[in-house]
Amino acid sequence: MPLIIMTLFSVTTLLTSLRFKPQKVIFFGDSITAQGVRPGGYITRMRDALTQKGMANDYELIGAGIGGNKVYDLFLRMDDDVLAQNPDVVFIYIGVNDVWHKATSGTGTDIDKFDKFYTAIVNKLLDKHIRVILCTPAVIGEKNDFTNMQDGDMNAYSQVIRNLAQKFHCGLVDLRETFHNYELKNNPGNRDSSILTHDRVHLNDNGNQLVADKMLEALLAK
Amino acid sequence: MPLIIMTLFSVTTLLTSLRFKPQKVIFFGDSITAQGVRPGGYITRMRDALTQKGMANDYELIGAGIGGNKVYDLFLRMDDDVLAQNPDVVFIYIGVNDVWHKATSGTGTDIDKFDKFYTAIVNKLLDKHIRVILCTPAVIGEKNDFTNMQDGDMNAYSQVIRNLAQKFHCGLVDLRETFHNYELKNNPGNRDSSILTHDRVHLNDNGNQLVADKMLEALLAK
Amino acid sequence: MPLIIMTLFSVTTLLTSLRFKPQKVIFFGDSITAQGVRPGGYITRMRDALTQKGMANDYELIGAGIGGNKVYDLFLRMDDDVLAQNPDVVFIYIGVNDVWHKATSGTGTDIDKFDKFYTAIVNKLLDKHIRVILCTPAVIGEKNDFTNMQDGDMNAYSQVIRNLAQKFHCGLVDLRETFHNYELKNNPGNRDSSILTHDRVHLNDNGNQLVADKMLEALLAK
Amino acid sequence: MPLIIMTLFSVTTLLTSLRFKPQKVIFFGDSITAQGVRPGGYITRMRDALTQKGMANDYELIGAGIGGNKVYDLFLRMDDDVLAQNPDVVFIYIGVNDVWHKATSGTGTDIDKFDKFYTAIVNKLLDKHIRVILCTPAVIGEKNDFTNMQDGDMNAYSQVIRNLAQKFHCGLVDLRETFHNYELKNNPGNRDSSILTHDRVHLNDNGNQLVADKMLEALLAK
Repeated sequence: MPLIIMTLFSVTTLLTSLRFKPQKVIFFGDSITAQGVRPGGYITRMRDALTQKGMANDYELIGAGIGGNKVYDLFLRMDDDVLAQNPDVVFIYIGVNDVWHKATSGTGTDIDKFDKFYTAIVNKLLDKHIRVILCTPAVIGEKNDFTNMQDGDMNAYSQVIRNLAQKFHCGLVDLRETFHNYELKNNPGNRDSSILTHDRVHLNDNGNQLVADKMLEALLAK
Repeated sequence: MPLIIMTLFSVTTLLTSLRFKPQKVIFFGDSITAQGVRPGGYITRMRDALTQKGMANDYELIGAGIGGNKVYDLFLRMDDDVLAQNPDVVFIYIGVNDVWHKATSGTGTDIDKFDKFYTAIVNKLLDKHIRVILCTPAVIGEKNDFTNMQDGDMNAYSQVIRNLAQKFHCGLVDLRETFHNYELKNNPGNRDSSILTHDRVHLNDNGNQLVADKMLEALLAK
Repeated sequence: MPLIIMTLFSVTTLLTSLRFKPQKVIFFGDSITAQGVRPGGYITRMRDALTQKGMANDYELIGAGIGGNKVYDLFLRMDDDVLAQNPDVVFIYIGVNDVWHKATSGTGTDIDKFDKFYTAIVNKLLDKHIRVILCTPAVIGEKNDFTNMQDGDMNAYSQVIRNLAQKFHCGLVDLRETFHNYELKNNPGNRDSSILTHDRVHLNDNGNQLVADKMLEALLAK
Repeated sequence: MPLIIMTLFSVTTLLTSLRFKPQKVIFFGDSITAQGVRPGGYITRMRDALTQKGMANDYELIGAGIGGNKVYDLFLRMDDDVLAQNPDVVFIYIGVNDVWHKATSGTGTDIDKFDKFYTAIVNKLLDKHIRVILCTPAVIGEKNDFTNMQDGDMNAYSQVIRNLAQKFHCGLVDLRETFHNYELKNNPGNRDSSILTHDRVHLNDNGNQLVADKMLEALLAK
């Protein structure tokens, strides 16, 4: 009898704790992530998908994207914007500006420094036992034959991220590869934009859905 | 009898004229071409190959390469360095610096201006009934998976040149494609240099031989 | 009697021809000049000033500015956009993008090429006996202590233009110097913009008026 | 008697401690500082000057310069290369590459990030009660009329450093101002280099002496 009561009590506690303690998931990134929390954005779509699956209370999805951010901006603000919130899971989705700013303001990030700062961020998160999922940057220009100006760097910086995911046994959402395969199938006219982005970089509806699908898959994988 | 004499005379005249009027071929380009006239350079190798074929007197090969040149440098000096010499054939081999200088000095060439100046050069040569053979720029970095920083631009600017060759019915030596295929076969370690170049851009012995072979093939094709 | 009539007729013809043949003045430049023909623009203000002086019929002012143009864009389009119109006077007002594009797209103009193309333009105009007036580029950023990022280049490229004006005995409107002196007096807070520009580069009302005043002074000087 | 002995003992101990505990001074910087420890380098000259003043044992001068370093490289290696050595004084001499790399590789440092990382370095040093002396970057090009390409940025980034010195009550060696005044007096031909540098950036004998003089003055000031 007391045993049953205790057991019931435990189950109730467990359920309560599950109901009131969703996993806190932070999306740490740039303008693409800043736009992800808008209606139709990829984070919003992930939330909707979780609701449809009856998992609305299992995860709290928090956007932490700031326009123009590069890897060292994430490093500089990670204490305030990520660690202070005690997340369970952090998606790191950065790299477009590290490459792009080379051409647009002369202030891109050297690839070896990209590696160093990215490593420093991952190390700090893993030290806190936070689950870390890395994302490769998708596209700057949607042409599918590697004739977008930054394709060389985008491929190289994505490879750095893939290597880090492997080295630190982190999750990986390989958006670079996902987008490239999608463009090969769905961009027969080899257009510069408007397949998955509206301006070569920022996601349109299709792009937001594709990112949401892949990120959710990674989040629910275990 | 008089017929035979006349015929012999004609043949002699013809041979003489061939012997004393070789086709004048100018290689118009940047530092890669400036180095092409050195011992072991691609122009030197072409000359040697013609000698071996017994065609030493059929072609006069002239290097007109200047280090650091971009397409509009060729445009600015084409009257003095090319037209003034009345060539029969001109190889245009330019583009590396138009792409590279974007990153190394902020003074690369916009792709639409590259097209315009290239077109202006081709038009001026064709107006003089000069045979024109276009070459795509080979490599800035020898990695074979499109992870060299400038691969996107190198592919895009090469496509501009391919389109111009087709539009103006010019010869084409597609070094970009030739080098890429060579790297796929002969660079299994995906090294940055020392397969066909010694510094990611300038040709080593293998590179000079490969360029010489392809250019000679184009020169002798008709 | 017939003589007087003839003379009167001649004088009338002469006056008529003077009245109906204004000097054709072309302003050849970039977006600043493209905006110069708008209401409130510097060319519009020059036209208004000429009207106030009763000289409306003496000069025909024509804008030939295209956004984003660099010196070699002027060179490429000068036959169509300037020479085809048989102008009497040409103001050349270029240089901002040659400097600025180094940082914003990696496609600025090397200073020695800036000199070469500028020289080629001036030479072609002088060959046609056109009066040429050179303008130095004013500002990219309005801070008055040489802390605007491009100040070094702006000063250097302006010096190239001053040297060309002297070498070819052309008129000079030294907007770089004019603006700097104006900022020293009227920008005590050392602001980045909104003294003579609305965005660090493009002219506000004060800027358009200052340019109009200086250009008109140069046009009427002889 | 015992008192005298004790006093003598104390004095001896004091002298010994002075002799064996020199102030540890670290010069934290880029290639200019890496070259500063060579014969004729500015750190070597400071050591010689201290010896001449009979102060050889008062200071231990340690070079911690690495070629190509920018402000965030200093940040990334400050634990290992500076804090681990428990210095008493740190000279921070950085900024040339933060500006220069914008043009030479597209990977310069945004001015607001320069401020943030510089602040982070100063804060970490002051937290350890280390005396901090800031240096403004001297020159990229020696022309004295602000026509060196990077003069605008060099002036702006130097101003950031001056503001930080004031804000944190640190010492300041204003090399930017020192060099400019020197060039005004000693570079009448407005040459690009060879007054205080041998290549527009790295110090020649005169440059090393000037830097040594100013740094020693700051070190000995209190």
